Amino acid sequence: IETCNHLWNKLSERGADRKSLMINLGGGVITDMGGFVASTFKRGLKFINIPTTLLSMVDASVGGKTGVDLGPLKNQIGLFSNPEMVLVDIDFLNTVSEREMRSGLAEIIKYGFTFDENLWNTIKRFTEIDMQEINKLVYKSVVIKNKVVLQDLHENNLRKSLNFGHTIGHAIESYFLESEDKKSLTHGEAIAVGMIVELYYSSQVFEFPMELTESLKSFVNRFYGTVHIEKDDLAEITKLMKFDKKNVSGKINFVLLDQMESCKLDVQLDAELIQNGLFYYMQASQ
Amino acid sequence: IETCNHLWNKLSERGADRKSLMINLGGGVITDMGGFVASTFKRGLKFINIPTTLLSMVDASVGGKTGVDLGPLKNQIGLFSNPEMVLVDIDFLNTVSEREMRSGLAEIIKYGFTFDENLWNTIKRFTEIDMQEINKLVYKSVVIKNKVVLQDLHENNLRKSLNFGHTIGHAIESYFLESEDKKSLTHGEAIAVGMIVELYYSSQVFEFPMELTESLKSFVNRFYGTVHIEKDDLAEITKLMKFDKKNVSGKINFVLLDQMESCKLDVQLDAELIQNGLFYYMQASQ
Repeated sequence: IETCNHLWNKLSERGADRKSLMINLGGGVITDMGGFVASTFKRGLKFINIPTTLLSMVDASVGGKTGVDLGPLKNQIGLFSNPEMVLVDIDFLNTVSEREMRSGLAEIIKYGFTFDENLWNTIKRFTEIDMQEINKLVYKSVVIKNKVVLQDLHENNLRKSLNFGHTIGHAIESYFLESEDKKSLTHGEAIAVGMIVELYYSSQVFEFPMELTESLKSFVNRFYGTVHIEKDDLAEITKLMKFDKKNVSGKINFVLLDQMESCKLDVQLDAELIQNGLFYYMQASQ
Repeated sequence: IETCNHLWNKLSERGADRKSLMINLGGGVITDMGGFVASTFKRGLKFINIPTTLLSMVDASVGGKTGVDLGPLKNQIGLFSNPEMVLVDIDFLNTVSEREMRSGLAEIIKYGFTFDENLWNTIKRFTEIDMQEINKLVYKSVVIKNKVVLQDLHENNLRKSLNFGHTIGHAIESYFLESEDKKSLTHGEAIAVGMIVELYYSSQVFEFPMELTESLKSFVNRFYGTVHIEKDDLAEITKLMKFDKKNVSGKINFVLLDQMESCKLDVQLDAELIQNGLFYYMQASQ
């Protein structure tokens, strides 16, 4: 919000008016924040997004979600506002670090489990980022995301599927962000863990095939390395889930799967199962 | 924005979610800010407005404009977002000071000049606030405002009429707000002066009847008292007009009248005439 304030003041100083166009060139933080700043300046400037990271290409820059964090809480402040255009130029990926590429890949894995298992079948064979395949995966991801948000921009139904992995993932990401002795995770690193844990719930509650849960776990441990969550961290991580935007009336809502490409929305879990899922990941990573 | 940050944090602490309803009970600052805070929390809570001042009843709480100031600049940050309901209960006016009643009256005068001269013909006979008449004037004002915003929510055409008096008025209001040796004006006090000045322009450019300009001037001087603008203030006031939200490409756009109930939109004036209008008011008030 401090940064927004700075940007609003800059827009004001430089004489931006309702006919101005804002160009958000950068990663997800830039396109999310830029969209929010543009949409709230003088009640709305037009803007376009030019995502430069894999994560923003496949996720952040499509779908009209704009927003900024409230302290450590992810994207709590924002609104739905569509850019005039999204320009995806794969050449920008030459400027992206390996770690950030892996971060974006996690969202493509999410599309694989929730909408098109071919994506996952391609990715699970990766020993490193395969740029030939990435080109195609970006295209397919944008097509999926666009189709979903056209059907349900305001996330009343179908779009909730795209939160798979994010209830746990956002809480872990926030926790590592505000913790003084932990190194921050990338969004994708946190979401990858979130997907493992939420697939575990899916296996427990909906008999999602446990061998697929295991295959994601072993891929993530190999490809992303291990996120070290200690027993002492669990209380705070669970508390952070309470701020998830999907929650209603203090109940934490999960997106689970009963099989590949088939989501169950607004699932509530008891506290013990929530813990057990985290233990499942922690054991795997020791 | 500081206050918004405080409110967003309170909403977060108290567990507000997407099914929460925010009730904005208060004057225009509260309904404007509350609407903004609600519309941007978790990408949008529902809200209702219960205006408690004359100003917010006839203006701020209808029409979907939400917003907050950027430093001294009025309503620079915000968006269009409609409340679920606006509850106007005239009994709240018993809690409003005389000065705040006069502030709201200025917006009713504006509806008189721009949309229904009967309102002005009623008000110009006031020697003090007539509560019987106010009841009817509030109703008529809300009907006018609602009709205008239904036709043009996003202020592309007709709704611009409602900015009559506000190009000069907002600049004066901002100037007095940030000035260290001036006492702040109410919104209506500033807008009343703005309407006099902009009617003067209307008389000069479109032959709006000068006797009507004079009649507003003498009513405002009698009813609102005099706003003391000095020659030294003019440069800064003119500079502040550059931040008006109607401006495009650095040009200051005015709403003028060629006759009662007939607005001319997006009129640009030369610097000398802008000055002369302010002199016209200043001479009147000496």
